[in-house]
Amino acid sequence: MVHNDGFRALDRQECLRLLGKVPVGRVVYTRHALPAVLPVNFSLDTDSSVLVRTSARSDLVRAVDGVVVAFEADEFDAATRSGWSVVVTGRAHAVTDPAEHERLLRIGPDSWMPIQDNVFIRIEATMITGRELTDLRSTR
Amino acid sequence: MVHNDGFRALDRQECLRLLGKVPVGRVVYTRHALPAVLPVNFSLDTDSSVLVRTSARSDLVRAVDGVVVAFEADEFDAATRSGWSVVVTGRAHAVTDPAEHERLLRIGPDSWMPIQDNVFIRIEATMITGRELTDLRSTR
Repeated sequence: MVHNDGFRALDRQECLRLLGKVPVGRVVYTRHALPAVLPVNFSLDTDSSVLVRTSARSDLVRAVDGVVVAFEADEFDAATRSGWSVVVTGRAHAVTDPAEHERLLRIGPDSWMPIQDNVFIRIEATMITGRELTDLRSTR
Repeated sequence: MVHNDGFRALDRQECLRLLGKVPVGRVVYTRHALPAVLPVNFSLDTDSSVLVRTSARSDLVRAVDGVVVAFEADEFDAATRSGWSVVVTGRAHAVTDPAEHERLLRIGPDSWMPIQDNVFIRIEATMITGRELTDLRSTR
């Protein structure tokens, strides 16, 4: 399942529908010049950007504010060897506008961790790619 | 859940035990100077390195052979807001030694996709970090 052959590419609307089904995705970025990945719970904003709520002092904010990152979510079933994955790639930034921050406090994601100095990270959905793996054994 | 506070750090043995529970993880690397992530099914070798089976012509081999990558696996339960994640960081390389390739054909991971020109990618477990998130609401 590590190359494109045999996958069905998903269009943007399918990708967004699938992202809406799962609570957790993974922010992919660079830290200390090494590839880094952090699972986070998230939600989608009305413009399809990915919203993550964290602490203003978190390592994540320092690492990704203003930087292009990838955000990945997936679901796979080992029994049927089927599933899907979606990757959103775009610039991440901490939301600093007070009115926008207030709006996200109401409609944005909760955090699964107790945090102080709430800050929201927005990942712009500049590029959304997705693929679906169906059980090919039945067709072999 | 995006910062360390409140997580329990997992030791290397706990990380390896958890990695053995899940069939799919995610290779985190750089492609065209952008962060990239690809879900793959995998297995652990006797030296704890991560093994992935793919096609010799796959984009993944070209992108990661000889490069330090991250490999992430996790399990989370939205109902209890609990779960774990493990990240292996180390150099990836395509296995070229014929005897080693033969050994991995026997004991290495299958591929969930039909592939030609089987090649195994080994990700050295140079650094293994993991953390566990327990349901904190019951302790609040």
